[in-house]
Amino acid sequence: MKVDLLIHSAAQLVTCASPGGLKRAAAMADVGLLADGALAVADGEIVAVGPSRELRADFTAAETIDAAGKVVCPGFIDAHTHAVFAGDRLDEFELRLRGATYMEIMAAGGGIASTMRATRAASAAELAAGAAPRLAEMLALGSTTIEVKSGYGLDTASELAMLQAIELLDAGQPADLLPTFLGAHAVPPEYRGRTDEYVALVIDEMLPAVVEWWAGARFKLPGAALFCDVFCEANVFDRAQARRVLQAGQAAGLPAKLHADEFVSLGGVPLAVELGAVSVDHLDVTPPEEFGALAESDTVGVVLPAVNFNLGSTHFANARALIDAGVALALATDINPGSAPCPSLPLVMALACRYQRLLPAEALNAVTLNAAYAVGQGPRLGSLEVGKQADVLVVAAPDYRQLAYQLGGNLVETVIKRGRRVLN
Amino acid sequence: MKVDLLIHSAAQLVTCASPGGLKRAAAMADVGLLADGALAVADGEIVAVGPSRELRADFTAAETIDAAGKVVCPGFIDAHTHAVFAGDRLDEFELRLRGATYMEIMAAGGGIASTMRATRAASAAELAAGAAPRLAEMLALGSTTIEVKSGYGLDTASELAMLQAIELLDAGQPADLLPTFLGAHAVPPEYRGRTDEYVALVIDEMLPAVVEWWAGARFKLPGAALFCDVFCEANVFDRAQARRVLQAGQAAGLPAKLHADEFVSLGGVPLAVELGAVSVDHLDVTPPEEFGALAESDTVGVVLPAVNFNLGSTHFANARALIDAGVALALATDINPGSAPCPSLPLVMALACRYQRLLPAEALNAVTLNAAYAVGQGPRLGSLEVGKQADVLVVAAPDYRQLAYQLGGNLVETVIKRGRRVLN
Repeated sequence: MKVDLLIHSAAQLVTCASPGGLKRAAAMADVGLLADGALAVADGEIVAVGPSRELRADFTAAETIDAAGKVVCPGFIDAHTHAVFAGDRLDEFELRLRGATYMEIMAAGGGIASTMRATRAASAAELAAGAAPRLAEMLALGSTTIEVKSGYGLDTASELAMLQAIELLDAGQPADLLPTFLGAHAVPPEYRGRTDEYVALVIDEMLPAVVEWWAGARFKLPGAALFCDVFCEANVFDRAQARRVLQAGQAAGLPAKLHADEFVSLGGVPLAVELGAVSVDHLDVTPPEEFGALAESDTVGVVLPAVNFNLGSTHFANARALIDAGVALALATDINPGSAPCPSLPLVMALACRYQRLLPAEALNAVTLNAAYAVGQGPRLGSLEVGKQADVLVVAAPDYRQLAYQLGGNLVETVIKRGRRVLN
Repeated sequence: MKVDLLIHSAAQLVTCASPGGLKRAAAMADVGLLADGALAVADGEIVAVGPSRELRADFTAAETIDAAGKVVCPGFIDAHTHAVFAGDRLDEFELRLRGATYMEIMAAGGGIASTMRATRAASAAELAAGAAPRLAEMLALGSTTIEVKSGYGLDTASELAMLQAIELLDAGQPADLLPTFLGAHAVPPEYRGRTDEYVALVIDEMLPAVVEWWAGARFKLPGAALFCDVFCEANVFDRAQARRVLQAGQAAGLPAKLHADEFVSLGGVPLAVELGAVSVDHLDVTPPEEFGALAESDTVGVVLPAVNFNLGSTHFANARALIDAGVALALATDINPGSAPCPSLPLVMALACRYQRLLPAEALNAVTLNAAYAVGQGPRLGSLEVGKQADVLVVAAPDYRQLAYQLGGNLVETVIKRGRRVLN
């Protein structure tokens, strides 16, 4: 049989496959490793996975890649990002290092409000142009699918501009982007002290406008969803407000995601489980007694250790206990200008191994198959299995554990998106 | 005047210059920033630094680089590495994540002994071939000068093979390498319980052989020294043994360096100061009462936060207090297979800002000018000043603080070594 692409002789072909769907508990430590493995691709999809000898006999290919001495694995999926924004937060970074408190930074006009001002001042095209180099760097580090949130506009026109920027960026580069509407990211200054009124604006004005935009939007990934997300946190949006926004989103066809338990636990995890959210993200201070219900749900727990790291914190989400409790765990960068200027899922894997006691295999499943489920794409992405989209990395190392072991470099040598070599 | 290379229009030309030599205290927060700056290079040396308008009028250049919107800064200097080794320590990494203690890993044949076995089994050419991709990655991340230690051979022939590998690597790629003889890195198994006998071997057999090798060795950097270093630590080499080795080295013409205070303080800092060592490295548990004498000396304090990070530790050397006390501080990767699989000085800068409260400017001076002094090359390398070797980076960002702010990516766009563009 003739195929478009044959990758063969991989020292390790790492499938991350899971016939049962989401990986949990002991299954998270299994990456589905095939020595001297091969992979055949036709029409952008994986048509065979198996021993090199068999596939080289069965297929002739228009293009072949000899992966001898290398790892072949699924493209990474970054399931939680704020990759579109304007401005930078370098002054705030330096102020913080000089010992300024969060409140002092806010008083100096810093924090999310500064990103909001810069974002409101930019057009969709300008936002897209500013984010393009970030997405290019993320792709070079192996991220072939990237969720991107709105939430720095905080008025209807600016939230729409952010979503339009995400649509422009999806069309303008190889990675698949998945948009999330995060109008309830923060209360903008003009609504200070009137959070319920802002929530009403999100539900009554922004959401219908976003739904209308989405009806005409075009994204490369078939079946891509538009998610609805809320930052449920002390002094931001409480549990009741989060519930209102997410239920309104669900009523309009937007699957729910939730920022919960970054600083203060407000019961966001039980809310996410109750609403059947696709994911619940952060989990830094989630009470252990809430782990069980999350483990019994199909809601993916997404932890974001680059945030803790960036803040110089020594407290990290208890990802080890979450996995041991049976939670389907994913890792993401949370790339954003304030709390996580980090484009690298390999560095996030490295962090998770050092400070959250994940094994390299668990970290890899957490940025591939489970991350695919965290963006509603488990059946299509995140593993090297027949019928899945051929998003594949060739890694310049003979052992997949190098990905999480190495700190600050980039072992990703070749990026294949939808069966096409897009980098190197 | 005609020159070989003119770099102009830099958003920030960051000189890291210091007329007084080593940067200390408040001077560490000054990077010598020139807006719309330019740099002219002839015969591999910097011949002018100044405003773009002036230099563009004064010089015609065979090659020009327009650095608009970008940072131009000195090439980074990695002043402490174990970049040459054979084998890997992935199994040990995973065992440690599973909770194995250091002693259990040693008992399983892991630790430095496993690297020693693999290194002894390799030829100089094999060691060089194994290290070449690491050095290429370090160069791509901006390291244009790299100190590399022996110390995994631990017998005379194998230590010589490591040094020969460093010489081969110096010739085989653009970065300048500086070799360090670290025969006293560990006590090899065949000398277990006979540390003084091993120290005698280092002094009486290895050192003369190394000195003889050095007499015939050729390195690209004029005036490159061969350093002598010791791992002074509980259950390794005590202070008296370290003194014997370093004094023997100095008598043979080898400037001293010292690993001190990584786990236990044995008085290594006062020893380094007393001997006039070029640097004293690690400093994780150095008592604050020793900071003053170090600050009054010309010995550079080198801290290695990637080690603490790799071990998942929340304790880091108190670099903030060291700077405030007046110590001339440098940062290095310590890249090695056991405790720091980290090729990236930008990640080390990022770590130092988050966990050691350095400012981005302090971190940049710590990997440029002060790092040059830590390898005895302060007068020749580490800053953009007339007469210095033209080792220059063009960084894809308009603000030098981005280098330390960003986590896990690589903003280094162009690497210029000795006036020649060697990457991009």
